[in-house]
Amino acid sequence: MSVSEQKQNSYVFQGSIDKPGLQVIRGEGIRIDVEKNGKVHRGIIDAITGAAVGALGWGDSEAFQVIEEAARTATYSYPPKISNKSSEALAKYYIDRSPKGAFAAALWTTSGSESNENALKIVRQYWLERGLPNKIKIFSRESSYHGFSLGAQSISWNARVEPYQPYLIDREKVCFKIPCAYTYRFKKSDETEEEYAQRLVENLEEQIVTADPDTVAVIIVETLPGSSLGTTPPPKGYLKGLRQICNKYDIIFYLDEVMCGTGRCNPNGKLNCWENYLGADEAPDIQTVGKTLGSGYVTIAGVLVGPKIRDAYLKGTGIISGGHTYASNSFNCEVALGIQRKIERECLTSNIFEMGNIMGNMLKERLFTTDNIAGDVRGLGGFWSIEFVKDRKTKKALDPALNIGPRFQDYCFDNGLSVMGMPGNPDGSCSDRVLLAPAYIITKSEVEEIVTILVHSIKKFSENLRSEGVW
Amino acid sequence: MSVSEQKQNSYVFQGSIDKPGLQVIRGEGIRIDVEKNGKVHRGIIDAITGAAVGALGWGDSEAFQVIEEAARTATYSYPPKISNKSSEALAKYYIDRSPKGAFAAALWTTSGSESNENALKIVRQYWLERGLPNKIKIFSRESSYHGFSLGAQSISWNARVEPYQPYLIDREKVCFKIPCAYTYRFKKSDETEEEYAQRLVENLEEQIVTADPDTVAVIIVETLPGSSLGTTPPPKGYLKGLRQICNKYDIIFYLDEVMCGTGRCNPNGKLNCWENYLGADEAPDIQTVGKTLGSGYVTIAGVLVGPKIRDAYLKGTGIISGGHTYASNSFNCEVALGIQRKIERECLTSNIFEMGNIMGNMLKERLFTTDNIAGDVRGLGGFWSIEFVKDRKTKKALDPALNIGPRFQDYCFDNGLSVMGMPGNPDGSCSDRVLLAPAYIITKSEVEEIVTILVHSIKKFSENLRSEGVW
Repeated sequence: MSVSEQKQNSYVFQGSIDKPGLQVIRGEGIRIDVEKNGKVHRGIIDAITGAAVGALGWGDSEAFQVIEEAARTATYSYPPKISNKSSEALAKYYIDRSPKGAFAAALWTTSGSESNENALKIVRQYWLERGLPNKIKIFSRESSYHGFSLGAQSISWNARVEPYQPYLIDREKVCFKIPCAYTYRFKKSDETEEEYAQRLVENLEEQIVTADPDTVAVIIVETLPGSSLGTTPPPKGYLKGLRQICNKYDIIFYLDEVMCGTGRCNPNGKLNCWENYLGADEAPDIQTVGKTLGSGYVTIAGVLVGPKIRDAYLKGTGIISGGHTYASNSFNCEVALGIQRKIERECLTSNIFEMGNIMGNMLKERLFTTDNIAGDVRGLGGFWSIEFVKDRKTKKALDPALNIGPRFQDYCFDNGLSVMGMPGNPDGSCSDRVLLAPAYIITKSEVEEIVTILVHSIKKFSENLRSEGVW
Repeated sequence: MSVSEQKQNSYVFQGSIDKPGLQVIRGEGIRIDVEKNGKVHRGIIDAITGAAVGALGWGDSEAFQVIEEAARTATYSYPPKISNKSSEALAKYYIDRSPKGAFAAALWTTSGSESNENALKIVRQYWLERGLPNKIKIFSRESSYHGFSLGAQSISWNARVEPYQPYLIDREKVCFKIPCAYTYRFKKSDETEEEYAQRLVENLEEQIVTADPDTVAVIIVETLPGSSLGTTPPPKGYLKGLRQICNKYDIIFYLDEVMCGTGRCNPNGKLNCWENYLGADEAPDIQTVGKTLGSGYVTIAGVLVGPKIRDAYLKGTGIISGGHTYASNSFNCEVALGIQRKIERECLTSNIFEMGNIMGNMLKERLFTTDNIAGDVRGLGGFWSIEFVKDRKTKKALDPALNIGPRFQDYCFDNGLSVMGMPGNPDGSCSDRVLLAPAYIITKSEVEEIVTILVHSIKKFSENLRSEGVW
């Protein structure tokens, strides 16, 4: 069979296999030009920056200069054999801008998935270095997402992972599921937020004791979940509670900040999201990052390693055997460093924290009227979600079969705004959501523009659903 | 504990944790400047290009232009939602330069590991699309290497993978090990190469029948193994035999060409290594690639999908749910395309096939004297290995504890040549090796220079081993 002779609409094996779908043509600042069915739609406002990737915005001329210089100065090598100075500089930069003593080393990878794969391997080697090979059990949360590769999918718990079960890490003996921290739906009406957090932590402690703490390796959570649950902030005291449990039972405390980290939600003009909730002495032992690290200009992500883990390695073998061909890649590291320097110099992390919170508050003010399906508006800094519901009072989820999230994404695009629409959980435990993660450069008037289009789109879309009889 | 106050030699978590090790400073053509213990060694000949990554050589001015233009024209997007034209163009380019009908689509990733992770997921979905969910068993080879992430490690079989066993895909019910194809050691003296291949294929067929073909999903082999066994070409008829077994029992035939593909060993001035061994109608159903695709200028790799798989998806759901943030990245694809165009225009694939074979033959001619430890010289095109042995006649492996491969790598570096030295298998089933994979631009006189330094280094190193009493 000669497929190349057939009329074929797309050669890329992703999304809808035979449809090229939307195609980005050009970007500038917070706007993108996108081709849809042969027609170019100009000036679409990009309120999601792909998947929470963009910080500098598109077409940044300083980023171009950084890339041009990096291309001319960086030479590829295989870092486990021959390393480079750019990866050292980026590691030191990130460590120095995190609370003192939190991190001691970094590994640079090419994706968040790879970061989580490597972090799991680091956790494993950590326990071997300490002579505790039975510490293998991994606790991660329901409705979580940690990446697209098989190890990362094994610690993610959602419907999309199910088909890959035979190829995942053992889910009876190794990967354990703990409840998500989801205040909007699972805090009881007679509980305070602190009591809800306490209940979650106690529940976790029971699970760990049942599993036998001497066999538990690590607890993994997204500081602020992204695509999985829609930017639901941890209830007050929850992360501190997890940290204490990890201390008490000698377990690695592992935060995934691939989406929410690297300046997207930092209150101090710095990098880590957990600084909203934890002190320097409560830092995670290991943390994964990605997305805005390269701001979409290079494909880079990373793993930050705390002193506890680094010290155990140094007291042990001191060696990591092998590595990725593109680990700690000099070109990617050099570009990321240049981008982070501009973000710092222009105080863009502070800007997005302020502007994002303004955006969230405006959405809260304008959406809770009776004419639309918004059930919850939640988030922090530059990372927000709106959860749609059938009934705001009962919080009843929309029928997942209606595919409201993705449908709203398309509707919004036609109104000139790019957002990410996520489908609801099949079991109704989380309804359809819209995710927002604009570039850090966003201005107040651009925030107003996003809110105006979004609120208008949600109301018109809700009207349509009403006339369809599904709301 | 405040680690940042301590004197710390390295902040990158790889290799020897507290040592920055060698650091590349600059590259031009086939030469690199490398800093070692504070001193810069200039003009080291790079005979391995990191890990078989380089094609254009370093500091290529056309590559710089391609990068500068790509940076200015590419805009990041999340391709499963908003795609781009560069990824389509690169897919079509690769498919068009492969034998007609072999491939129908491509997914671009950011590493060979990610490619193999995604290929495993594609295989899984393929069988689900066909309504055969019990087809889950994966057959891959002893002494194989498919990447550093957990899914990729699960199908790799070597000593370095062992510590990660609890985090690998089930090795009793899902991942099965088949013998490697290793003519130098495992072809019996009374067998022809064809008979050895036939024996391997019959052995595989028995294993498949025992496992129940209705539960077997895929057979995965490296066309020409790289770091795992040292570029041992498949014995005559072996790959054809695997293809026939896959046809007979309805199993996916999956080739890993991350190291050996994309022009490193193609006899026709094109891309795929398997064209040395298989006809167009015997093409793999799925293939992973990487390395020279970006030639070290961008971190890109890929999965090529045959029409059989694409058609099954189209007859089924037609959809892949989700994807990597950096999948089919426009900047990476655009740069790779520019690099591949230069390689094609300057006939560099033909050049490396010719020059590499000259290099291999020169090594064979000069190394089989009594004064050195070379046991076997093997390879194809631009990809060669020398296996060191204690005794050339009996092929007895060197004591793995002596770490001869990595030690020779250091020794060679001090003589101005960068190679990859691999340790022997702990069970003696493969001895220490040196791996060579120069850039495609290499000239005849540069080949002679490599061979001269390498032969000299091996002989002097052998002398040293003799005086140490270990050889």
